[in-house]
Amino acid sequence: MLFHVRMDVRLPPDLDPDVRAELLAREKAYSQDLQRAGKWPHLWRIAGEYANFSVLNVENVDELHDLLSGLPLFPYLEIKVTPLATHPSAI
Amino acid sequence: MLFHVRMDVRLPPDLDPDVRAELLAREKAYSQDLQRAGKWPHLWRIAGEYANFSVLNVENVDELHDLLSGLPLFPYLEIKVTPLATHPSAI
Amino acid sequence: MLFHVRMDVRLPPDLDPDVRAELLAREKAYSQDLQRAGKWPHLWRIAGEYANFSVLNVENVDELHDLLSGLPLFPYLEIKVTPLATHPSAI
Amino acid sequence: MLFHVRMDVRLPPDLDPDVRAELLAREKAYSQDLQRAGKWPHLWRIAGEYANFSVLNVENVDELHDLLSGLPLFPYLEIKVTPLATHPSAI
Amino acid sequence: MLFHVRMDVRLPPDLDPDVRAELLAREKAYSQDLQRAGKWPHLWRIAGEYANFSVLNVENVDELHDLLSGLPLFPYLEIKVTPLATHPSAI
Amino acid sequence: MLFHVRMDVRLPPDLDPDVRAELLAREKAYSQDLQRAGKWPHLWRIAGEYANFSVLNVENVDELHDLLSGLPLFPYLEIKVTPLATHPSAI
Amino acid sequence: MLFHVRMDVRLPPDLDPDVRAELLAREKAYSQDLQRAGKWPHLWRIAGEYANFSVLNVENVDELHDLLSGLPLFPYLEIKVTPLATHPSAI
Amino acid sequence: MLFHVRMDVRLPPDLDPDVRAELLAREKAYSQDLQRAGKWPHLWRIAGEYANFSVLNVENVDELHDLLSGLPLFPYLEIKVTPLATHPSAI
Amino acid sequence: MLFHVRMDVRLPPDLDPDVRAELLAREKAYSQDLQRAGKWPHLWRIAGEYANFSVLNVENVDELHDLLSGLPLFPYLEIKVTPLATHPSAI
Amino acid sequence: MLFHVRMDVRLPPDLDPDVRAELLAREKAYSQDLQRAGKWPHLWRIAGEYANFSVLNVENVDELHDLLSGLPLFPYLEIKVTPLATHPSAI
Repeated sequence: MLFHVRMDVRLPPDLDPDVRAELLAREKAYSQDLQRAGKWPHLWRIAGEYANFSVLNVENVDELHDLLSGLPLFPYLEIKVTPLATHPSAI
Repeated sequence: MLFHVRMDVRLPPDLDPDVRAELLAREKAYSQDLQRAGKWPHLWRIAGEYANFSVLNVENVDELHDLLSGLPLFPYLEIKVTPLATHPSAI
Repeated sequence: MLFHVRMDVRLPPDLDPDVRAELLAREKAYSQDLQRAGKWPHLWRIAGEYANFSVLNVENVDELHDLLSGLPLFPYLEIKVTPLATHPSAI
Repeated sequence: MLFHVRMDVRLPPDLDPDVRAELLAREKAYSQDLQRAGKWPHLWRIAGEYANFSVLNVENVDELHDLLSGLPLFPYLEIKVTPLATHPSAI
Repeated sequence: MLFHVRMDVRLPPDLDPDVRAELLAREKAYSQDLQRAGKWPHLWRIAGEYANFSVLNVENVDELHDLLSGLPLFPYLEIKVTPLATHPSAI
Repeated sequence: MLFHVRMDVRLPPDLDPDVRAELLAREKAYSQDLQRAGKWPHLWRIAGEYANFSVLNVENVDELHDLLSGLPLFPYLEIKVTPLATHPSAI
Repeated sequence: MLFHVRMDVRLPPDLDPDVRAELLAREKAYSQDLQRAGKWPHLWRIAGEYANFSVLNVENVDELHDLLSGLPLFPYLEIKVTPLATHPSAI
Repeated sequence: MLFHVRMDVRLPPDLDPDVRAELLAREKAYSQDLQRAGKWPHLWRIAGEYANFSVLNVENVDELHDLLSGLPLFPYLEIKVTPLATHPSAI
Repeated sequence: MLFHVRMDVRLPPDLDPDVRAELLAREKAYSQDLQRAGKWPHLWRIAGEYANFSVLNVENVDELHDLLSGLPLFPYLEIKVTPLATHPSAI
Repeated sequence: MLFHVRMDVRLPPDLDPDVRAELLAREKAYSQDLQRAGKWPHLWRIAGEYANFSVLNVENVDELHDLLSGLPLFPYLEIKVTPLATHPSAI
């Protein structure tokens, strides 16, 4: 089941550089594991913004929430979820 | 799986009364069938507004969309869907 | 009498971990007492967000406000209350 | 129990004058009956706008909704309801 | 002359408790003096929010501004003022 | 007493030209009478928009509302009123 | 080059049914041609709304605009375009 | 002097085709005259929308308003004007 | 040439009192010099808010920006500029 | 290919002056290099605001994002990107 997600990253500019680097490394690893597991089929950078559009593929909404709230960056994210249905014109 | 839905009804005030009555009757029957089928566990009127909060219980997002887009009032509805996960404090 | 409530939690990410843990524990206990007392019939997690939709069942608005403003997390909450009436189609 | 209500009137400018006059007369009578019954303790015109702030005094939310949805102008109203609690500083 | 005012209180959660208590005490005394003087005929708590709806009765707009900007909490308040006229249906 | 007013004109493009011309003529006469009477000290066109910023000088809010709701264009206007106090730095 | 597009369809409910059917058929054919040509890699229905999220793959912005403004439904569409860059974590 | 302008065109879809074609032809001629006169140095189509960003070069604000309100499409335009100053980093 | 300006002051409540006093003194002097020079013909306090409506009279937009960005409070101001044209009904 | 960009600068007022000066110097140099390279054909100051409208000329969206996210001020910028197509009336 597909969910469209917009994530805006609100990292405080004065966050300690090491803390920041470690956090982003964990975030990247977490996301790439999910991508390899087929849970995160699409991840695009919104041009000019520290934000992304993603499409997640999960079994149910609880799994969706666990996946998103488990993101290392979660405390600094503004997230908007939109459930996606099959479009009648999609081939 | 639960989805929270806000529906705002935008019926044109000058809609032919018979058309309106027939439409609302079909809407009520449609909704009550789904309630009886356990697909529509909660339906509340937002006080003072021609709108409701609902909670729908479906197997997947396609079923959710079919259910909502099948509403007789659908062409006159403004709908906002929010997926619901289990709350860690809910007993 | 039912009131629909949206609560968005705005905890500062740099809040002392112990303070945070203690606060959340008190919040959970407070909420579960009210759920057991029938005052808080519905509590759902908004998927992907640190927020919930709740439905509270109270005698009057003063009780509603006391209940909400008594939440340990109240200083960090953005709350939106919507009174719910009986829907004419609800079975 | 008190509820604060904002009502914005959206009458189409090209509404038949007689229909308009009759509608407004019924609205006035309806509102004044409720005022005399103590259900509508406050009714103020928002300066410069075809809108009012009101405070309604009802037993419960269903009564509130019946009262508001019974307004002759209801199909042309945009209504926003806010429940009012007792303020700790109010004398 | 009546003015409708919405006040949202934005006190920082980490404000020193003693400073907070003293500030709120002064705010309460200030408001109750004005209520006794008939300048502040209505003061209601917006249920679930650290905010109030008030109606102030003043001679002119300068007095209104002095009264509001003199509130001890003024630096922490978001205020919205709406001038109220007599409603043609008000009895 | 001064009130700042923004007026956005929403005339339907397909309004009968004669009706439109007559309406605008009455609006201009009405406004210029008030300007000559000192009630309407400032009237500026918002560049690029069918809208104006005005400052009205009235004795009280009822007079303000009568003045504004008496505008021939009133049914087609979106009006926003802001009460103005004396600025401490104004010379 | 990828562009994320949100399209909200605002068809008037009282549009002649035949005109509507013909329009939707042309829209479907137009979209499926582009999908087959690889220009429209993703097309999802936003659950509960007459809207879709799409991702378009074009050579430049002029082609993007021609593609979108050529949609049979274009006069009834509200469109929001967001350019997509490669995400550094995307595998 | 430069002014940035966003223009959103809101032509009713059911406008008579001949009226529409004539209107657009006049709009194009009007705009191209101004472009040739150096008054309209920049005109870009906002991709996917019936809207444009323009930059106009005028002597004063009255000329700006005359230019914009003289647009044949003016009754169907939503216009937003932003005055532009020289940027300290611009070469 | 006239420009309408709304200025909202966002001074942090915990700003050092002496710094604040000095800043406000400089702001007042700066503004009064410009008022005396005829550059700042109107300055009103928005009742109940730490904000003002002003009308500035300048030769061009660069002068406008220099004047505004030169305000001692500029780093703490949210400013909205609207160019004003002569209104056809203004006497 | 042209992209319209709005950049709002949100520098904390209490940023260390030397850090600020160094940051702004790097930003200016960065921007002027791009202007000389033809990548940044337009850069205007939005009058009265610490913000600019720019037009960037890039080969693709990845280059656009690299250019914008490489801005020294990027962590303090709120950026809005709008792709620009050729306008049919542009000469």
